[in-house]
Amino acid sequence: MITLASDFGLAYPAAMKGVVLSRTDARLVDVAHDLPRQDVRAAAFWLRETLPYFPPAVHLVVVDPGVGTDRRAVVLRVGDHVFVGPDNGVLRPPARRVFDALDDAPVEAYEIDVPNPASTTFHGRDVFAPAAADAHVASASALASVDRFEPIALDSLAERRLPEATVSADGREATGEVLVVDDFGNCITNVPGAFVREAAGDRATVNGESVPVGRTFEAVPRGEKLVTVGSHGNVECDVNRGRGDEAFGLAPGDRVELRVD
Amino acid sequence: MITLASDFGLAYPAAMKGVVLSRTDARLVDVAHDLPRQDVRAAAFWLRETLPYFPPAVHLVVVDPGVGTDRRAVVLRVGDHVFVGPDNGVLRPPARRVFDALDDAPVEAYEIDVPNPASTTFHGRDVFAPAAADAHVASASALASVDRFEPIALDSLAERRLPEATVSADGREATGEVLVVDDFGNCITNVPGAFVREAAGDRATVNGESVPVGRTFEAVPRGEKLVTVGSHGNVECDVNRGRGDEAFGLAPGDRVELRVD
Amino acid sequence: MITLASDFGLAYPAAMKGVVLSRTDARLVDVAHDLPRQDVRAAAFWLRETLPYFPPAVHLVVVDPGVGTDRRAVVLRVGDHVFVGPDNGVLRPPARRVFDALDDAPVEAYEIDVPNPASTTFHGRDVFAPAAADAHVASASALASVDRFEPIALDSLAERRLPEATVSADGREATGEVLVVDDFGNCITNVPGAFVREAAGDRATVNGESVPVGRTFEAVPRGEKLVTVGSHGNVECDVNRGRGDEAFGLAPGDRVELRVD
Repeated sequence: MITLASDFGLAYPAAMKGVVLSRTDARLVDVAHDLPRQDVRAAAFWLRETLPYFPPAVHLVVVDPGVGTDRRAVVLRVGDHVFVGPDNGVLRPPARRVFDALDDAPVEAYEIDVPNPASTTFHGRDVFAPAAADAHVASASALASVDRFEPIALDSLAERRLPEATVSADGREATGEVLVVDDFGNCITNVPGAFVREAAGDRATVNGESVPVGRTFEAVPRGEKLVTVGSHGNVECDVNRGRGDEAFGLAPGDRVELRVD
Repeated sequence: MITLASDFGLAYPAAMKGVVLSRTDARLVDVAHDLPRQDVRAAAFWLRETLPYFPPAVHLVVVDPGVGTDRRAVVLRVGDHVFVGPDNGVLRPPARRVFDALDDAPVEAYEIDVPNPASTTFHGRDVFAPAAADAHVASASALASVDRFEPIALDSLAERRLPEATVSADGREATGEVLVVDDFGNCITNVPGAFVREAAGDRATVNGESVPVGRTFEAVPRGEKLVTVGSHGNVECDVNRGRGDEAFGLAPGDRVELRVD
Repeated sequence: MITLASDFGLAYPAAMKGVVLSRTDARLVDVAHDLPRQDVRAAAFWLRETLPYFPPAVHLVVVDPGVGTDRRAVVLRVGDHVFVGPDNGVLRPPARRVFDALDDAPVEAYEIDVPNPASTTFHGRDVFAPAAADAHVASASALASVDRFEPIALDSLAERRLPEATVSADGREATGEVLVVDDFGNCITNVPGAFVREAAGDRATVNGESVPVGRTFEAVPRGEKLVTVGSHGNVECDVNRGRGDEAFGLAPGDRVELRVD
């Protein structure tokens, strides 16, 4: 199985599919091709929330604002999962989540040999798609058998940690930021859900504004704001059947100061 | 085969796919993940117009504005088709269309046991996707063998009928409403196409405005309005190579008074 | 394998999938269903850039502004590739690209018998999808065995050539137009990349404005304009991590006068 994720939008993903299917009859599964454009951090968040649910697979990920620079093209193996994409950190959060769910899984990294990395080549089609097909054919445990894959040190991989929130000593105040806004307008922060659950209050103050804390959207009337813990396990600033981003005036990267009352 | 339909947009559907594929290697087919957001009626319309064309399959449908309330999670079997989703009526129109096309198909309903229905769980991923996989593995005729499926009375299912238009005694006037606007801007009403065909006039009055009746878009010059019968079999208010919704000033739910002249 | 491409957007493609899967268990691959609406030329460009990367397949293409007119429904075989769609020229550019990559591939054309071509039928669902399934079942070398397929002369097919740019005698000036704007805002022209490579200058004048020529986006600072050769092999007017269409004031069809300095 090969999953495909990119920020390519229209048509470009199909060229990648064609290249992969010319090399293997693996099952293909589209993850998303409308990942936030050239936004490595947001893409890493969404991939962390989706790829670990898959059975062992090759995960082809192309969110690559540095295409044409000297950033490397890499393959990262975690147990029976293989991540293929640019070495810009986007692969690390989903790979780490997969690693944490396994028991001492073998981890390896390879650089994909790219003859002319600064060409105007479409790397998704010409570098990453063939590499994903080759990784699938070789299988996760025999990546070293692929000629173009050169072993590299794990700690040489670009790191892109999602930012972490801070929680005050008494556990009632947290400072974080909006990681992403989903298509419903929900503002997903990096504040762990445990903060809200442990502080155990009925209301929260978000950047100075007091709103109810609810376990579900329906805890408040339609159109009303609330703070809740989403399916990601993170604190969200939402509106029941409305857009939290508009109501709270929040966008990705914005600072969020929370106090549970 | 398992079809997937939702209003989730970006990334969330992939988590459902991962969960399903961790339980079965069934073929997956995306129906749409951009169904009108939290709009049960419009989703039911689109699913009625698409799912009945599929061969027997498990149809996973998640348009679920009531997630986190006490609405049930259900499985509805019609012959060899199985519909899995929230009990908010969205499953009924496509299931009824499938039933009507079959000869006395067996129909059964089950409630999916959800340990804590009001949790902040992502039901698409954590309840409906595993249920769809289990239904596929069990097969339509042996759903009772799935432990978490509890038989329920068919007439206990939430009903969500699409509204019906009325036609005058002389067959020349009809009153209905816009069910949905498609991506082309075509305003699909609930007035049956037979109304226009039987009234057999060259022009129609739509909310007081006279426009041609055409069998195809090309019956009128580009940019011109017309009334036609769409592939759904319903009367539509359209513009040839333009947007009917903008030209007629119509939106879903708007009342439409038609007279064929 | 059957690939699917259309400008249908929401839901309609699923009806086509259902129809195909009711007739064959072929692998289905979505190419794109958000092709520029009713824009045969832009669709032909995108299909030329994607379909030739696939292994032999039946390519179901429905961008069909003339549905309901007397335009024919056709099947075009090039070697082991089969193109199914309206006879409006959209199939020719990808078919020609496939032909050019093969060595003397057999080429045949058929008209699909449509009982009532001017009906309000949804041809994607009712004509093209069944034809694609039948073509897949018959295989590329035995299309004549499908009852509804009538052989027609190749030169009777509608032609839709993508417009060609002109290059001055000294090779420093080119006049062309914007073929398409991709989802990143890159303006892809019909000027061949060889023009820029052979003129070999550091800067280019685009409609009177001088900008750098770069081999990659990163050749210029973020937000800056450049002229580059894209993965299609054509000259593009782009902005590094920004939208070229907005910065250059260009849209599909606009004339582009280039001079390399």
